[in-house]
Amino acid sequence: MRATLMYGSGDVRVEDVPDARIEQPTDALVRLTAACICGSDLHPYHSMDPASGPVHMGHEGIGVVEDTGSDVTTVTKGDLVVVPFAFSDGTCQFCREGLQVSCEHGGMWDDGRHPNIGLQAEATRVPLADGTVVKVPVAADSALIPSLLTLADVYGTGHHAAVRGGVGPGSTVTVIGDGAVGLLAVLSAKQLGAEQIILMGRHTARTDLGREFGATDVVAERGEEGIAAVRELTGGHGSHVVLEAVGHLPAYEQAYGIVRPGGTISRVGVPQYEDAPVGFASLFGKNVTLTGGPAPVRAYIEQLLPAILDGTVQPGRVFDTKLGLDQAADGYRAMDERRNLKVLLRP
Amino acid sequence: MRATLMYGSGDVRVEDVPDARIEQPTDALVRLTAACICGSDLHPYHSMDPASGPVHMGHEGIGVVEDTGSDVTTVTKGDLVVVPFAFSDGTCQFCREGLQVSCEHGGMWDDGRHPNIGLQAEATRVPLADGTVVKVPVAADSALIPSLLTLADVYGTGHHAAVRGGVGPGSTVTVIGDGAVGLLAVLSAKQLGAEQIILMGRHTARTDLGREFGATDVVAERGEEGIAAVRELTGGHGSHVVLEAVGHLPAYEQAYGIVRPGGTISRVGVPQYEDAPVGFASLFGKNVTLTGGPAPVRAYIEQLLPAILDGTVQPGRVFDTKLGLDQAADGYRAMDERRNLKVLLRP
Repeated sequence: MRATLMYGSGDVRVEDVPDARIEQPTDALVRLTAACICGSDLHPYHSMDPASGPVHMGHEGIGVVEDTGSDVTTVTKGDLVVVPFAFSDGTCQFCREGLQVSCEHGGMWDDGRHPNIGLQAEATRVPLADGTVVKVPVAADSALIPSLLTLADVYGTGHHAAVRGGVGPGSTVTVIGDGAVGLLAVLSAKQLGAEQIILMGRHTARTDLGREFGATDVVAERGEEGIAAVRELTGGHGSHVVLEAVGHLPAYEQAYGIVRPGGTISRVGVPQYEDAPVGFASLFGKNVTLTGGPAPVRAYIEQLLPAILDGTVQPGRVFDTKLGLDQAADGYRAMDERRNLKVLLRP
Repeated sequence: MRATLMYGSGDVRVEDVPDARIEQPTDALVRLTAACICGSDLHPYHSMDPASGPVHMGHEGIGVVEDTGSDVTTVTKGDLVVVPFAFSDGTCQFCREGLQVSCEHGGMWDDGRHPNIGLQAEATRVPLADGTVVKVPVAADSALIPSLLTLADVYGTGHHAAVRGGVGPGSTVTVIGDGAVGLLAVLSAKQLGAEQIILMGRHTARTDLGREFGATDVVAERGEEGIAAVRELTGGHGSHVVLEAVGHLPAYEQAYGIVRPGGTISRVGVPQYEDAPVGFASLFGKNVTLTGGPAPVRAYIEQLLPAILDGTVQPGRVFDTKLGLDQAADGYRAMDERRNLKVLLRP
């Protein structure tokens, strides 16, 4: 079968690899209908040491179950399923609490412990299928596939930002970042009832989509100018909630500059830093709450599904190009050069 | 009148100063029944530059209203009132939300902008009296005075830690620090229904009082050993809530070491650091929430008062010595040398 492998920074290849197959009684074999490239795939694309490759790529997928291990009970051959970016047993205390990313027996496609499976491929073995995949009631050729695919990561991640941030009716929310997660954080904030949604981003095509998703204001400035602009838009005191969907330190610094006293910064951009300001001058003095982390997207799929199925929301609009699997390297390059927002791959 | 002044690090003097008097129509003149020395008073005691002194000291008090400005309506001559560590107008948007420490027109006794007023004195001018002081229905010679005095700071601060930490029925809570705030965080966690309360501290007299306040376990170890001990006490995964009542970086590092995935660190120890770990390895990867800040104790007084009045709780037990005002310098020394937990001063 064909699969996307990364050999090192900037070196992505689609190659023939041994066919995926069931290895554990809890596995499912899924033939991908669609997969995609994530902003976080660009981190190894920038920095991966060839000595640690090649690794199979891809952690967001939707596809048809082709076979299941003997222990799998919740899905069966022929089901169309969403495959989230983390796999989880569905039974441990963290899964039961809805924090599947901390599953005691689970993992992530990209955690370095599973280099031989990935979703940018024709098919894949999915570990812990019962606790991981979710059946969706549409056909594999449905026009809803792109939107359903976002349930594997970016929509659930944007939703997680808003939920952890405590967004509710009347909230003033600022979203930092106009990537797919930032735009879906806007959509999620809108769904949760936010009154004012300020999107900080400078790519007009993206911020225009953000406005369609619910942004009431767009701020293109960054740093001190961006902070001043948000303060002016929020009556001088800042934003109740800040959803940080970038992951770089300047975005974090912007976040505590614009958050209102007593407010919340919710991060879902994977931090590319470890130390940052948290003392009296940044968070403590203003009673600011810092929250967020990897999204337990598995916990949100059933909840977010109905509005996709009935057409209320179209999160799949974040895909601004669709390529064949064999063009995956072109897709990486296009996203890296910011020519494309998010690339869908059709195996 | 007599008042406590700090001239520089280690140099505390009780001296004759001009009598306190009404200056603004919103002021009250309060004659102190009791005041006390705070752990945070030890920061300038360690580091104050004589060039920036002398300053009046003290930000926790209870006393009798002796006079009021023409605009004051909520208290009158003869009322016994608690005077919190921050003053606030009671009418701005932050005060109405219960975040009086961010009052648009308020301030703190120790914020450097009010060097000529302080509560370690015979009397003081209290700015913004209507939004600041709270009348309590006991006599000035009541045995409840020490407990009521804790409403000015340390009890409200411990309560704030627990509230912001989301402590509720069934919570597993770890309190870092056996000072007055840490012990009253234990008491507050108990009042809010925590099931397991682990107190990290090494002064047996203090941790014994912590057990009486509700601690179910005491861990004397620090650092990696302390983290291992708490993990063992919590079934391996750590504590739902960590209340950090110290303010030094090692306490913060301990906090993220013992917090459970998805849990909360609530800080009320004023951070003596600005940068600290917040990335994937510390907070983000575990979906940990970091919260807390200066406590809006004014917001909590009415709520915490009944259990003091009816004897359900005795937070005043944190005062392990009572000195006359003229012995304030001895009190600073005793607290600095950790011979006393918290010193009450009687003017």
